[in-house]
Amino acid sequence: MMQPNILFRFAKRVDLPSIVRMLADDELGSQRERYETPLPESYYSAFEQIDNDPNHELIVAEQNGEVIGTLHLMFLPSVSFQGGLRAQVESVRVDKRFQGQGIGGEMMNWATERAKQRGAHLVQLTTHKTREDAHRFYERLGFKGSHLGMKLSLK
Amino acid sequence: MMQPNILFRFAKRVDLPSIVRMLADDELGSQRERYETPLPESYYSAFEQIDNDPNHELIVAEQNGEVIGTLHLMFLPSVSFQGGLRAQVESVRVDKRFQGQGIGGEMMNWATERAKQRGAHLVQLTTHKTREDAHRFYERLGFKGSHLGMKLSLK
Repeated sequence: MMQPNILFRFAKRVDLPSIVRMLADDELGSQRERYETPLPESYYSAFEQIDNDPNHELIVAEQNGEVIGTLHLMFLPSVSFQGGLRAQVESVRVDKRFQGQGIGGEMMNWATERAKQRGAHLVQLTTHKTREDAHRFYERLGFKGSHLGMKLSLK
Repeated sequence: MMQPNILFRFAKRVDLPSIVRMLADDELGSQRERYETPLPESYYSAFEQIDNDPNHELIVAEQNGEVIGTLHLMFLPSVSFQGGLRAQVESVRVDKRFQGQGIGGEMMNWATERAKQRGAHLVQLTTHKTREDAHRFYERLGFKGSHLGMKLSLK
């Protein structure tokens, strides 16, 4: 399904409440985010770091002036793969009211094209093992679930 | 097992051949690296990017003046987790001649302490599903295999 009137662009500071609302609006996210007015300052300081680093691109999908999707695209220099640049995608969300319309797929295709433009040889991401619909979604886009993603909490 | 005479330090340009030798010296690495003399220039340009970016730390373990281990520690600003900083570990290797002596564990503990110092709330990594001994190694260090790691090759 094509969504011809969707614009993908870099996020601005004023987009943060919309982004955090989407991050908080699911089972895992609701346990770890704080979607409040005003937002906790820690979100704004993270945004500044991302916005000032050319290897980080926080992206939003906008439709009719409204932010309805987001992802964070990172470019990671690496010695491995003959010094090949990796792209990594984190924090992918589509507003629940707009899910099932192909917006996530278009957003990921946009990110993959962007990664190619910047010379990455690979796009990598992890999704929680419980997000089985996400696994199928990424497999349809060509991703292979070849790895185990491991986390150590420091809190 | 403690290895009291092991030094962990930032890699220098002259360490690159030792690092690439270790990356190339296993089943998966041998298919994708080019350990040659001189090394392909792409390794050096990746090293320069890593070395110039304060969010990237390429680490080596040195014993008696010899490089016997490496890992790449990255710090990733993120909007999620209330704007929490993530640490990510890539390209972990211990020279085959020195495996089984606890060096990998000490190197990972060093990296975890470093991540805490820099304020990360999480250390994350992915390992290939076929590396079952690596999964057990990271589980012993407290990592949980909660995620599926997915990759899309752009080549």
